[in-house]
Amino acid sequence: MKMVQAIIRPEKMEAVKKALEEKGFIAMTIIEVRGRGEQKGITLEFRGKKVDVDTIPKMKLEIVVKDEDVEIIIDTIRASARTGKVGDGKIFVLPVERMCKVRIDD
Amino acid sequence: MKMVQAIIRPEKMEAVKKALEEKGFIAMTIIEVRGRGEQKGITLEFRGKKVDVDTIPKMKLEIVVKDEDVEIIIDTIRASARTGKVGDGKIFVLPVERMCKVRIDD
Amino acid sequence: MKMVQAIIRPEKMEAVKKALEEKGFIAMTIIEVRGRGEQKGITLEFRGKKVDVDTIPKMKLEIVVKDEDVEIIIDTIRASARTGKVGDGKIFVLPVERMCKVRIDD
Ligand SMILES: Nc1ncnc2c1ncn2[C@@H]1O[C@H](COP(=O)(O)OP(=O)(O)OP(=O)(O)O)[C@@H](O)[C@H]1O
Ligand SMILES: Nc1ncnc2c1ncn2[C@@H]1O[C@H](COP(=O)(O)OP(=O)(O)OP(=O)(O)O)[C@@H](O)[C@H]1O
Ligand SMILES: Nc1ncnc2c1ncn2[C@@H]1O[C@H](COP(=O)(O)OP(=O)(O)OP(=O)(O)O)[C@@H](O)[C@H]1O
Ligand SMILES: [Mg+2]
Ligand SMILES: [Mg+2]
Ligand SMILES: [Mg+2]
Repeated sequence: MKMVQAIIRPEKMEAVKKALEEKGFIAMTIIEVRGRGEQKGITLEFRGKKVDVDTIPKMKLEIVVKDEDVEIIIDTIRASARTGKVGDGKIFVLPVERMCKVRIDD
Repeated sequence: MKMVQAIIRPEKMEAVKKALEEKGFIAMTIIEVRGRGEQKGITLEFRGKKVDVDTIPKMKLEIVVKDEDVEIIIDTIRASARTGKVGDGKIFVLPVERMCKVRIDD
Repeated sequence: MKMVQAIIRPEKMEAVKKALEEKGFIAMTIIEVRGRGEQKGITLEFRGKKVDVDTIPKMKLEIVVKDEDVEIIIDTIRASARTGKVGDGKIFVLPVERMCKVRIDD
C-alpha cells in the first residue's frame, strides 16, 4: 500500500476530486496547507506597494491505495490539476505498512 | 519506529486522548482535516433542501512510537473511537526512519 | 528521497525558514497543528483559575529532499528552532518513494 500525497492549487480541488471519482477513487483526506516550491514565492502589488508573499495557500490531498493504483492516481491528478504555470503542485508517494478501519476489526 | 496516523470523528478526540493517556501514550500531533471514505459523502437536509456534503470534518492524529507499541495504539484508538456506524475512521501505519528532539542533540 | 517532518514553535517559523533558505532549501509545506510531547501539557493561570492546556499550537514543516541533505536540514532546523526549554519540537524522517511535479511529466 502507498500514500499518495498531492499538493495542488485550492481552485483545482473540485476538478481533481471529480476526476478521481470518475476513475473509482472516492476515499481521501484533505488538509489546508501553505507552501512554496523552487521559486520561493511571488511578489504581488497591494495598494501600490510590492509585497512578498513567501508562502501560498495550497490544498494537500492524501490518498491511501494499493500499489498498482498509484500510477493512475498520479496521472489523474496531473491531468486535472495542471495549468502549465509554475506552482501547479507536487506529488509524493510514501510507503504504508498497514491500513485498517476503526468501525470493524479488519 | 512507526507513525500511526488515525483519522477519527472530531467528537471522539477527547475519549481517544484519554484512552491513550491511560495506556501511557501522551505525545501526539493533531490536525484538522476533511475527508471521505468509501461511501463518498452524505446527503443532509438544510432548510428543506437536500445538500450533498461530499467531505466531512475529521481529526487526524499522528503518533510516532516504537514498533512494538503499534498494536496497542491501534487497539486503544479503535476501542475509544468506535461507534459502529460508517465514518468511524481509518488508521494508517507508516515507517519512520528517525526521530529526534529539537531541544537537545539526541 | 526522504520527507523531513519538523514540529516547531510557531514563533520560530520565520527563523527556521530563513535559516533553511540560507542553506539553499526553499521548498516546503507548512501545516498548522496542535500537539503535546512527553510532558503532556501545561497548566496556565487564567483569571486566577488553573487551566490545563493539554495540547499546544505548533507548526509542522514538511520538506522532501535527497537522502544526503537530511542531516543538514535537521542541523539547520535544530539550530534555528531551539530555545533550550521543553516543547522546542520534534523531527521525524520518513521514506519517500517518488516525487513528481504536476506541471510537467518529470
Ligand atoms: N520539496 C518539497 N517538499 C515539500 N513540499 C513541497 C516541495 N516542493 C513543493 N512543495 C509543495 O508543493 C507546493 C507547490 O509547489 P510548486 O508547484 O511550486 O513546486 P515546484 O517544484 O516549484 O514546481 P514548479 O516549477 O512547477 O512551480 C508548494 O507550495 C509546497 O507546499
Ligand atoms: N483510502 C483512504 N485514503 C485517505 N484517507 C482515507 C481513506 N479512507 C478513509 N480516509 C479518511 O478517513 C475518514 C473516515 O473514513 P471512513 O471511516 O468513512 O472510512 P471507510 O473506509 O469508508 O470506513 P466505513 O465503511 O466504516 O465508513 C475519511 O473522511 C477520510 O478522511
Ligand atoms: N511521539 C510523537 N508523535 C507525534 N508527535 C509528537 C511526538 N512527540 C512530540 N510530538 C509533537 O511535537 C510537538 C512538540 O513536542 P515536544 O517538543 O514537547 O517533544 P518532547 O519529546 O516532549 O521534547 P521536550 O522534552 O524537549 O519537550 C508536540 O506538541 C507534538 O505536536
Ligand atoms: Mg514552484
Ligand atoms: Mg465511510
Ligand atoms: Mg515536551
